[in-house]
Amino acid sequence: MQECRKEKYRVGILGSTGYTGIELIRILTVHPFIEISGVTSQQFAGRILSEVVPSLRGDVELFCEKLSEEFLNKEFDIIYSCLPHGHSMEFVPSIIKKGIRVIDLSADYRFKDVALYEKWYKKHTSPELLNIAVYGLPEIFRDKIKDAILVSIPGCYPTGSILALAPAVKNDLIFPDDIIIDAKSGVTGGGRAVTLEMLYAEVNDGMRPYKVGSHRHMPEMEEVLSHIAERDIKVLFCPHLIPMSRGIICTIYCRLKKKFSADELEALYKGFYADSPFIRILPSGTMPATQHIKGSNYCDISIFAEEHSNRLIIISAIDNLGKGASGQAVQCMNIMLGLPERTALTTPPLFP
Amino acid sequence: MQECRKEKYRVGILGSTGYTGIELIRILTVHPFIEISGVTSQQFAGRILSEVVPSLRGDVELFCEKLSEEFLNKEFDIIYSCLPHGHSMEFVPSIIKKGIRVIDLSADYRFKDVALYEKWYKKHTSPELLNIAVYGLPEIFRDKIKDAILVSIPGCYPTGSILALAPAVKNDLIFPDDIIIDAKSGVTGGGRAVTLEMLYAEVNDGMRPYKVGSHRHMPEMEEVLSHIAERDIKVLFCPHLIPMSRGIICTIYCRLKKKFSADELEALYKGFYADSPFIRILPSGTMPATQHIKGSNYCDISIFAEEHSNRLIIISAIDNLGKGASGQAVQCMNIMLGLPERTALTTPPLFP
Amino acid sequence: MQECRKEKYRVGILGSTGYTGIELIRILTVHPFIEISGVTSQQFAGRILSEVVPSLRGDVELFCEKLSEEFLNKEFDIIYSCLPHGHSMEFVPSIIKKGIRVIDLSADYRFKDVALYEKWYKKHTSPELLNIAVYGLPEIFRDKIKDAILVSIPGCYPTGSILALAPAVKNDLIFPDDIIIDAKSGVTGGGRAVTLEMLYAEVNDGMRPYKVGSHRHMPEMEEVLSHIAERDIKVLFCPHLIPMSRGIICTIYCRLKKKFSADELEALYKGFYADSPFIRILPSGTMPATQHIKGSNYCDISIFAEEHSNRLIIISAIDNLGKGASGQAVQCMNIMLGLPERTALTTPPLFP
Amino acid sequence: MQECRKEKYRVGILGSTGYTGIELIRILTVHPFIEISGVTSQQFAGRILSEVVPSLRGDVELFCEKLSEEFLNKEFDIIYSCLPHGHSMEFVPSIIKKGIRVIDLSADYRFKDVALYEKWYKKHTSPELLNIAVYGLPEIFRDKIKDAILVSIPGCYPTGSILALAPAVKNDLIFPDDIIIDAKSGVTGGGRAVTLEMLYAEVNDGMRPYKVGSHRHMPEMEEVLSHIAERDIKVLFCPHLIPMSRGIICTIYCRLKKKFSADELEALYKGFYADSPFIRILPSGTMPATQHIKGSNYCDISIFAEEHSNRLIIISAIDNLGKGASGQAVQCMNIMLGLPERTALTTPPLFP
Repeated sequence: MQECRKEKYRVGILGSTGYTGIELIRILTVHPFIEISGVTSQQFAGRILSEVVPSLRGDVELFCEKLSEEFLNKEFDIIYSCLPHGHSMEFVPSIIKKGIRVIDLSADYRFKDVALYEKWYKKHTSPELLNIAVYGLPEIFRDKIKDAILVSIPGCYPTGSILALAPAVKNDLIFPDDIIIDAKSGVTGGGRAVTLEMLYAEVNDGMRPYKVGSHRHMPEMEEVLSHIAERDIKVLFCPHLIPMSRGIICTIYCRLKKKFSADELEALYKGFYADSPFIRILPSGTMPATQHIKGSNYCDISIFAEEHSNRLIIISAIDNLGKGASGQAVQCMNIMLGLPERTALTTPPLFP
Repeated sequence: MQECRKEKYRVGILGSTGYTGIELIRILTVHPFIEISGVTSQQFAGRILSEVVPSLRGDVELFCEKLSEEFLNKEFDIIYSCLPHGHSMEFVPSIIKKGIRVIDLSADYRFKDVALYEKWYKKHTSPELLNIAVYGLPEIFRDKIKDAILVSIPGCYPTGSILALAPAVKNDLIFPDDIIIDAKSGVTGGGRAVTLEMLYAEVNDGMRPYKVGSHRHMPEMEEVLSHIAERDIKVLFCPHLIPMSRGIICTIYCRLKKKFSADELEALYKGFYADSPFIRILPSGTMPATQHIKGSNYCDISIFAEEHSNRLIIISAIDNLGKGASGQAVQCMNIMLGLPERTALTTPPLFP
Repeated sequence: MQECRKEKYRVGILGSTGYTGIELIRILTVHPFIEISGVTSQQFAGRILSEVVPSLRGDVELFCEKLSEEFLNKEFDIIYSCLPHGHSMEFVPSIIKKGIRVIDLSADYRFKDVALYEKWYKKHTSPELLNIAVYGLPEIFRDKIKDAILVSIPGCYPTGSILALAPAVKNDLIFPDDIIIDAKSGVTGGGRAVTLEMLYAEVNDGMRPYKVGSHRHMPEMEEVLSHIAERDIKVLFCPHLIPMSRGIICTIYCRLKKKFSADELEALYKGFYADSPFIRILPSGTMPATQHIKGSNYCDISIFAEEHSNRLIIISAIDNLGKGASGQAVQCMNIMLGLPERTALTTPPLFP
Repeated sequence: MQECRKEKYRVGILGSTGYTGIELIRILTVHPFIEISGVTSQQFAGRILSEVVPSLRGDVELFCEKLSEEFLNKEFDIIYSCLPHGHSMEFVPSIIKKGIRVIDLSADYRFKDVALYEKWYKKHTSPELLNIAVYGLPEIFRDKIKDAILVSIPGCYPTGSILALAPAVKNDLIFPDDIIIDAKSGVTGGGRAVTLEMLYAEVNDGMRPYKVGSHRHMPEMEEVLSHIAERDIKVLFCPHLIPMSRGIICTIYCRLKKKFSADELEALYKGFYADSPFIRILPSGTMPATQHIKGSNYCDISIFAEEHSNRLIIISAIDNLGKGASGQAVQCMNIMLGLPERTALTTPPLFP
């Protein structure tokens, strides 16, 4: 019963003024069992958070602190790191040593294979933590997340892709080396870095592919999918930048090992995700749309058994800042704290 | 104390599949003391609501009913009407006769002067209700809303304009016949009607004024502002259509009767809205932006005492579906039910 | 020599107030050898064209006529039909009988196999013309277009897809039954029909797939590609609707029969299109973007030999109203009239 | 006769890779009497222009040079400066000394009153040129532009505002100290500078005012309007940032000194601009829209004599990169070279 719970968990957020940090604060503000006890911002240290992020005005009374040893010595129950890749691992080991549980939204603890991380990112400075880190995809790793000390939130593209593929690869339905993921993302998937190519006029009213076959979310997907499938899974991943703020569509092309009807596939997927409140398997023939999941933690999935080409097409839609980052991070936290999974994640998507 | 309240109020929604209806359902879904007991839709009667509005999938289990006497005979505590202007008054009188309180989002009960309504809309069929109807702007009419049987939610433009002007006209700071309201709105302000000029390609990447000096929100503003000021207020109102889904900026130009400093004006506005949790008076020199209020019930207001031209410029930002319609309607309901005003309206705006 | 040419060709346009009709007029207005002698519009017959399409104000002095026998009896050298599928064939046979050459932007004469047309569209009323119709893709059928009486302009998706695939299938580089076309289009690809799902607020800031594996441009691509390849080509086609006004990206996944380097492929493509001024083969590693072809007749193509998955990825970008419709139609007309192919098509793309 | 003209004028462009530079090149590429002989770019010096601006690929064969004395010593007939404010005046004096005519798109030579420039910009280093500089608004200063050595292209907001107001102030129709200009602009009005607030996700799907009453285009408008009116004109100017790439709407509120009918005003405006092919005075009651002028050199103007408030409302629409910058610059060049004013500016606006 809610009314019995007296205390609130104390949460800290590192890197609070990027898009994932802001979204995290937006969600946690209405979380009944959480108190945000401190936030850091490299760029805005010393300033009132709601002056820097005016959408939070009136709802949040915090100021942006410097990320320092002093900050980390506050009494936190959980710390979220929204720091960029490579920076997170500068702080996570010492936080864990203090006995504080960490939810890391960077890529730093997503891989089990340190060589893979170092190939696609940089030299890892705390590889010993990779084995204790739990991949924060609750629909697959719910049990491990419960007791995890360090949860590593998946990349946005891997979230949409793995959730779409997991039932198929787990059940060995598809050929493991013939998987194409054509993904389309809104701009916030790339963070809030200030670059020419992310200016409004460069993105608006047009679209473009990028990092064809060379995006570093590809090895992440492969490692996790291979783990789920218990065999090597290979994917071809091709992302595109779409003129929208939030949202990812993953259109996935694969080949069934044997024939299944649309109904069988739908039933299999529904069964797989029966206990996962954020997965919505759409009725046969229904198309997902990012308009229907904006601002939420949902992942909508449609399955098409295409006869003409004999392919299975799986299409997922997520909000890259919701299920693709901060929503998922709160979902993981709820699990870690033994709270109902949907706590603070119940508001339906914003439409339109 | 929340935990003592056992029962939930039963709510019905007429016209649930337009943009204001959908937003209303989105908000009420997480309202702890409300149960949506029935919704109607002319266009989609007989269909599952969440099939027609897929964003609600998983959160709402309702089907769209026909608006009939039978429907209205259900046990409702409150009925929201999101019907179009002119249609609402076909049903409101009989609902009220049944003893059900009504929150009407149409224009049908916004005017006190029936002649004014009939000049700008059409023949009124229940003018006797205009006097019992309370204008649902809580910041001004909170006390009357409390006991109202019929609350008429203001138009979106009037909400943004009146909130920006009320402290000034109430305190007789400005000349009452020299007020220009240059407003800019996203497309949902015009509803979900299917017309050529609202197609994506007609609106995208461009903007246009419309109904210059002839929009029917103008007499609404004038009537309410005159009531607040206790003298005749005249406004020139010029709206523009902006390529965005939600949001209204009202840029209001007027003339101070005597000189005030920016600080004095800010203090006066803050005092006026001291008990109004959804009004955020921005610090001097700070600009409002619709990006900072999206999906929320906030109204952000900035005040500029422009010396060069000796004018007062007041700028407000609201979400036309939030504070400009459905958010405000829920705020009114909370007041009517004796609930905290912010109930179900606490999630910060979605940014970006 | 241009200066010797006295007369201008007289052109008529059927269905002038849809997006392809408007774009056609925009281009022809600056064509030095063309006079637009008459335009029809079902919806706006009797009105001044530039009142209905205000962008043309000052540049075009025409009024919208009714499509009648009388209209067709004017002295036209060429008639463009921008009528919808199914309607074009009501008029084309009689126009051709009058000895007027026709450029048809509908699907009515795109197929050689009448059964295929009738499967995906409707009963064909002039199948005898299918054999004399030339598929209006100059890069492939330039010689036939020159003397054609009836040119059928390809669909927008087929244009982007066939241009990307032609060199590969013509040279038998890829497996003919393992081709996936993941396409993304702006809204004008679907015409100017007034429907709920094309309203601004339904499309803005989000995206969705549609007609997965069941779009009728798929059989069109297959028929033409099979003709080019001189063997059966099968494609899986999956389109998506992107929040932008114009532009199509086709991301095409296929498999090379034997290994080629990126340089070899680039050289092969450049050779194939050596005489085609509107095809821009991008340097290796360079991404196309619809921002770079907007308002133009260009088709940008990038080729990626992806080693990890051993696939060939070909990506094309066109403006669906330019190379995907009206630009291509003017290009065809230039060829039919013996004019330089780029006449009236020389302005670089609008950026941004 | 075109065919008689042998030689082409040689043009240089300083700062070619900003938005105005790119648009200038787009227009000049199809100019029959111009050859672009050299372009500079600080950021991209040494690179192929069409690699940096891929929209120009195939149409332009130039490389970006360093802005040096050597560059300026090439044989140019005219040099355009698209350099930022403050930088242009570092180079203009020496170019003029070489006998090359200059068209400057910066603010450096827009003011006659050096004190005004220095108040709003910075210390002026060549104030002696202010008197020989001609304000490049052909509709007002056509005769002076013809023989000018240095033409200073107006700001985008001043262009839209002055064209809308000139007939009224020239004819002394309105009170000179009661003019409010509420302007709305797409993002390219602010140039291509890489800043947080111009990122796609910060601008998309929302809008905001900025520099209320403190934008430096305000004194520019006042100086020019005062010159036209031959009396002091004071304006209140309030700009807003709209989520679109191009386009400006100026909604101007003023007061007529005596009553005029809508027809009289329309006739007066049409007379004033009778010889100005780029001004389109819209029929009474017709609204301008930026969708109808995109990519063109048009300025659309509507006039409303609003009776309720007794105000005159004038609304103009321009493309800030067209008539608001590069289109206007080409128009000025045509006049300077004795060419027809519309040369290279005849393509109708891109719609949609």
